Amino acid sequence: MTLDEAGPGSVRPGGRTARVRAAVLEAAGDLLAEHGFARLDLAEVAARAEVGKTTVYRRWRTPAGLTADLLVDMAEQSLSRADTGSLRGDLEANARLVAKTLTDPRQSRLFRAVIAAASFDEAAADALHRFYDARLTEWSPCVTDAIDRGEAPPGTDARAVLTAISGPLYYRLLASGDQIDDQAVRGAVEAAVNAAAAGIFVRTGT
Amino acid sequence: MTLDEAGPGSVRPGGRTARVRAAVLEAAGDLLAEHGFARLDLAEVAARAEVGKTTVYRRWRTPAGLTADLLVDMAEQSLSRADTGSLRGDLEANARLVAKTLTDPRQSRLFRAVIAAASFDEAAADALHRFYDARLTEWSPCVTDAIDRGEAPPGTDARAVLTAISGPLYYRLLASGDQIDDQAVRGAVEAAVNAAAAGIFVRTGT
Repeated sequence: MTLDEAGPGSVRPGGRTARVRAAVLEAAGDLLAEHGFARLDLAEVAARAEVGKTTVYRRWRTPAGLTADLLVDMAEQSLSRADTGSLRGDLEANARLVAKTLTDPRQSRLFRAVIAAASFDEAAADALHRFYDARLTEWSPCVTDAIDRGEAPPGTDARAVLTAISGPLYYRLLASGDQIDDQAVRGAVEAAVNAAAAGIFVRTGT
Repeated sequence: MTLDEAGPGSVRPGGRTARVRAAVLEAAGDLLAEHGFARLDLAEVAARAEVGKTTVYRRWRTPAGLTADLLVDMAEQSLSRADTGSLRGDLEANARLVAKTLTDPRQSRLFRAVIAAASFDEAAADALHRFYDARLTEWSPCVTDAIDRGEAPPGTDARAVLTAISGPLYYRLLASGDQIDDQAVRGAVEAAVNAAAAGIFVRTGT
């Protein structure tokens, strides 16, 4: 994996099965980034990964199954939450990580491909939602720690705060095509910090 | 078109060419919502629209060309900006319109399909960006009027304000799968109003 969200020097558990999976998922990620989900072909993945076709068909069965496993791996390899000591610092780290991913040529194409896959296929959609659930769960303590420090009121919805950061950046990638620049990052961070402090993301009982 | 964003009683200019286009684009929208872009087939569109196959191939050429024309039509048919007299009122109307579209079964599938199409095809991507550009341009006066009324400082970036509304709602549809509920709508509106008033979306010269 060349996934930017992967930590430096991350090492996979050894063994042939693990090596095969790593090679296949890297090839799948490359091909998704190059041609998108609609042209993802298991035989081509096997050839690119230098792994037997039968192995790939037996283990992953379909392009959607392979995409789902790639998303599991992306969630496992992705970076831990920041812990800078302030909500603004943590949310800025989060926004910069998301912006870096969405402006990286390979990564941005890969994310657009897996999001497209989710629009065609239920298994891919489930895997995509699990990937984002893992990311939102990993980063939620940034908000609960902020509540403990008095930076946001009790009951602040951590997922809503994190969605206020990622949302405008993903909208630029997927919808408007507007640039994901420093102004976009800082706007998202300041708006989210301000809203969290003002109690706007406190869950009400509905 | 059964597009929710279309105004009530909107009437197309007459003529056979216009009627053919209306029938073809409605069929294309239906098929995109049902099966997604990867399975969009011009012959199937022609059959569904009860229009000659040759006409469809000659006029739209490819699935991407047809999707692009559908997006032109969606932009033309979509609702005018709100003008409630306050920034909060206008942004709430915008957020409710977006949420209604993204939670409507046909519309949400259609939007996911055209966004997926944009990840495969440059022409579809251009058309998608033009669609969102038209929407952002239509609604931007809500923010410039708010500046005139003193609700936001001069230099406030209207597209950034509108992106702060749509972004978190689109992120729920396309990425996290979290519910687009009343809390999501109100959080996006209040966060954007707050940030605009605080001068967070003022463009700085970079």
